[in-house]
Amino acid sequence: ITSMTSANLFPGVKVILVETSHPGNIGAAARAMKNMGLTELVLVNPLDFPNMQAVFRSASAGDVVRDAQVVGSVEEAIADCQLVIGTSARERRIPWPLLTPRECGEKVVTAFRGEQKVGLLFGRESRGLKNEELQQCQFHVNIPTGEAYSSLNLAMAVQVICYEVLQAKLADSHDAGNAKEQWDLPFADSAAVEYFYDHLETTLIQVGFHDPDNPRQLMTRLRRLFNRVRIDSME
Amino acid sequence: ITSMTSANLFPGVKVILVETSHPGNIGAAARAMKNMGLTELVLVNPLDFPNMQAVFRSASAGDVVRDAQVVGSVEEAIADCQLVIGTSARERRIPWPLLTPRECGEKVVTAFRGEQKVGLLFGRESRGLKNEELQQCQFHVNIPTGEAYSSLNLAMAVQVICYEVLQAKLADSHDAGNAKEQWDLPFADSAAVEYFYDHLETTLIQVGFHDPDNPRQLMTRLRRLFNRVRIDSME
Repeated sequence: ITSMTSANLFPGVKVILVETSHPGNIGAAARAMKNMGLTELVLVNPLDFPNMQAVFRSASAGDVVRDAQVVGSVEEAIADCQLVIGTSARERRIPWPLLTPRECGEKVVTAFRGEQKVGLLFGRESRGLKNEELQQCQFHVNIPTGEAYSSLNLAMAVQVICYEVLQAKLADSHDAGNAKEQWDLPFADSAAVEYFYDHLETTLIQVGFHDPDNPRQLMTRLRRLFNRVRIDSME
Repeated sequence: ITSMTSANLFPGVKVILVETSHPGNIGAAARAMKNMGLTELVLVNPLDFPNMQAVFRSASAGDVVRDAQVVGSVEEAIADCQLVIGTSARERRIPWPLLTPRECGEKVVTAFRGEQKVGLLFGRESRGLKNEELQQCQFHVNIPTGEAYSSLNLAMAVQVICYEVLQAKLADSHDAGNAKEQWDLPFADSAAVEYFYDHLETTLIQVGFHDPDNPRQLMTRLRRLFNRVRIDSME
């Protein structure tokens, strides 16, 4: 068991970069993948690889770059895949089953759980995937953007898609749910909170800030303020 | 009406990069932002800016780089913000209200619809945000990763967060129901809240509750308490 193995949360799920021009993008994509628990990188006819720029930009994902498989065609890259999803700009002449990145993540995780091999295809920096490449995919995935500037950097697209793959896995295993309510101390119970309000009101009257004969909304506003906070037991 | 205006889907929502080392990351972050419809970039003490590498890596987001506001402190960057969210690694000594990127996107869009100013804080490439910077945030957001390699490139983190902000807006515009965060008074901005903390600390010292020579975690705990509450302007 190597560290590679533990870094790979998705054995059988491959990121496939087609005719990438800039080695820096390969490195950045490798880092984005490994951050999200994917390590299987396939390069179809990269223009300039191997190249130190790829290793440099990969930071601590040099293993993903070094272990990348270089192949001569998309067919070869996806030959063993039961599910192939290709990134695409929205407007294509022939509409294809189109996924959002979130749906893509869910579909990949479902296939992964079913022990299918999965290929995620990313096209050239300049022109994306060709129509004949897109037609080898079961699904296309489009990353929604603002209208003013819709062209994501290649490695950024890899980051978004791999992010959604990991999110789908975490949601699926309920791992994601406990980011929400971690706290170091138990929340105070209602009795303690009421005691606190009594004490606060007494103190505010003593220091002359609060006039019980002309209360206006002061205690109500303070209650609203402290209820919002969900006081913990030390506080 | 300039092209800038139409590119900015989130007026009043700022991406704030703190002491960024590499100008290439500033450019890549600017591109990631503009792709997702955000254009308001603030740089706190960038180490090497302006720099052509930032313009080069921004591709067609050179306007975002050129229009970036450079300031001398985080306080200055967030002074007009009613909602401040900081990116954070998961493990901190004192837990803070922690959002997933998805929850972060929803919170930003809700605040934006309520015409609040929002600051999204991103720390240094090497060490992220300092504790005192994190304590100026109402919320922290953590991007879940695989365990083997948890350190995202700065611009990649900007991409993921801005992606979730745009997704939340797109989802929201289908829902139409924005009853979530209605409040009768505007939320206080950061400058007003800092003034409140100063006043609170002075008062606690005067009444003998707080010993500045033995502060322990008192002010940190109080900051956490009041940040959680999101103080409104009358409070």
